[in-house]
Amino acid sequence: MPVDTIMWEGGIDGKIKLIDQTLLPGEFKYIYCEDLPCIWQAIRELKVRGAPAIGIAAAMAVVVGIRNTNTGSLNGFFKKLKEVTSYIRTSRPTAVNLFWALERMERVAEEIVGARCNVPVQGIKERLLREAITIYEEDKDICRRIGKNGAALLKNNCRVLTHCNAGGLATADYGTALGVIFAAKEQDKKVRVYVDETRPLLQGSRLTAWELVQAGIETTLICDNMAASVMKEGKIDCVIVGADRIAANGDAANKIGTYGVSILAKEHGIPFYVAAPISTFDLRIPSGNEIPIEQRNAKEVTEPFGCRIAPEEGLNVYNPAFDVTPAKYIEAIITEKGVILHPDKEKIRLLLEKK
Amino acid sequence: MPVDTIMWEGGIDGKIKLIDQTLLPGEFKYIYCEDLPCIWQAIRELKVRGAPAIGIAAAMAVVVGIRNTNTGSLNGFFKKLKEVTSYIRTSRPTAVNLFWALERMERVAEEIVGARCNVPVQGIKERLLREAITIYEEDKDICRRIGKNGAALLKNNCRVLTHCNAGGLATADYGTALGVIFAAKEQDKKVRVYVDETRPLLQGSRLTAWELVQAGIETTLICDNMAASVMKEGKIDCVIVGADRIAANGDAANKIGTYGVSILAKEHGIPFYVAAPISTFDLRIPSGNEIPIEQRNAKEVTEPFGCRIAPEEGLNVYNPAFDVTPAKYIEAIITEKGVILHPDKEKIRLLLEKK
Repeated sequence: MPVDTIMWEGGIDGKIKLIDQTLLPGEFKYIYCEDLPCIWQAIRELKVRGAPAIGIAAAMAVVVGIRNTNTGSLNGFFKKLKEVTSYIRTSRPTAVNLFWALERMERVAEEIVGARCNVPVQGIKERLLREAITIYEEDKDICRRIGKNGAALLKNNCRVLTHCNAGGLATADYGTALGVIFAAKEQDKKVRVYVDETRPLLQGSRLTAWELVQAGIETTLICDNMAASVMKEGKIDCVIVGADRIAANGDAANKIGTYGVSILAKEHGIPFYVAAPISTFDLRIPSGNEIPIEQRNAKEVTEPFGCRIAPEEGLNVYNPAFDVTPAKYIEAIITEKGVILHPDKEKIRLLLEKK
Repeated sequence: MPVDTIMWEGGIDGKIKLIDQTLLPGEFKYIYCEDLPCIWQAIRELKVRGAPAIGIAAAMAVVVGIRNTNTGSLNGFFKKLKEVTSYIRTSRPTAVNLFWALERMERVAEEIVGARCNVPVQGIKERLLREAITIYEEDKDICRRIGKNGAALLKNNCRVLTHCNAGGLATADYGTALGVIFAAKEQDKKVRVYVDETRPLLQGSRLTAWELVQAGIETTLICDNMAASVMKEGKIDCVIVGADRIAANGDAANKIGTYGVSILAKEHGIPFYVAAPISTFDLRIPSGNEIPIEQRNAKEVTEPFGCRIAPEEGLNVYNPAFDVTPAKYIEAIITEKGVILHPDKEKIRLLLEKK
């Protein structure tokens, strides 16, 4: 069930191989990035998307960004590294995993220098590649553990609603929210899934529906505005979504529309779960109010697929990429370290401190 | 501010003039129908849509359908009239207003014959044209009265969210939900409007946004799943939508997505208004549970604009055209006879009985 969404091919002279997700479900195609502008563009244009996958992409972007630096001096190298990470940060400003991965790469470079004298620049480059691959491999393991922890919450024959794509296409393995569903299936539970199409970029219909159908799971596609109806008709037992950033108090930023779904779930007495790796927590941010929300191009709304569907002039468009679901609407956060029921600041702190 | 969505031009030898709404917002173009197949096609293909406008189109279709009948006998005329109305019924078999208008036209023809001897066939034709124009004029008057009654609820500088299109393009004048906004503007109140795009057929972005921009009203387009965010950000003072059918207890069927918006409005403490003519009430239906919901073609969801956005095989699609908003979520129903605050069966009955 996992798809090979993103990976590194070869050694330090190798390349990033990733599925161009903007072409799905019509076309399944890999692209290769050997330089920084290519992977920056891929992140920016959502060819690679989903919080964990963006983290991996960012780490690998550091490698392609610095490997050709021909300075022999550590000062010159670290100056270039700073340039590269600053540039990568501009690709998706809301994605905490991107920042997390970049900081981790910077720290690794600093640590290797701090620990030894006369480190050759080439050695740091090799070390950064190994770190990027470690991030990738850790993510595979995290997906499996989130899946296992979350599957315990799903009964046989349950019907799940999901929004956007928190599946294999968003990670190195079989996903976070979808990982829970895939893990339940591996435990021989029958799970049926309703998928919100997720305007404007339709990650639900294009990506999630594709992944679920590929995996042989009974899947029903709906427009976002139909979620309330299917809940009212008693067709949904729980909601599972991913997250892009979770504040210290449990407020969770995720794809636009998630917040509305959480309210609808509450109104219909349906538990609402967030499945996300520990790296999604940003304890520097006390609550969701402080999470910055990226505004995207109006044309995503007014010209889907190059087809104009709204007046060309005199119209404002509001196109936030994310919204924030307050912790009070979240029944549980499912992580690789365990499940936090009715999340709050204290419970989150305790879980994060757990070895 | 009203758009001339549909009208009759000339006398009994005249023609139906209507906006081809399938071309909006890209192209504003009138088409003219002088024979029955032309107007049948226009209704069938949603060139004219919206419950009141369909009723008007059906009445005018009767006129173009029977005016060239060269029989002098009443029997021959009524046989032809029956043929014509039966044929028009096949254009939109689920449109209640179409049936209502055709029954009214048939009744008028029968009444004129019942009241007098030796009615010339030409006289019945003229009478039917007058009745079609009366239906059109009554609808204009109803829009204005709904607008006036609703505008009293809007404060200066208020920000309204609307869903789908209950505007001039759905009526003979400036609409029901949008009529309230236009009437407030005529009273020199400043009103800003957020418009849900309204998947799958995008009547919000294609039609409502177009009407509002034409009228010089500050308009912001959002995807349906962004409504919760704009409410949370304090950008919405009230929601106003139309209705397709209202049950005896006040439960209101309207375009899919309306029910979800009503829950979001409640959660954010925002009043939710339904604007609709008295003819929308169906007292034979005790509650919303008995309102039949039309399921539409899956391709509206999976192939918008002829572009495939979901897997072609192995995927279920759920595509209800309408949903039902329970009366408990409705702050008020705005009609041409007055406003029903916190609607229930008794209040609705009293208003309908009011002279």
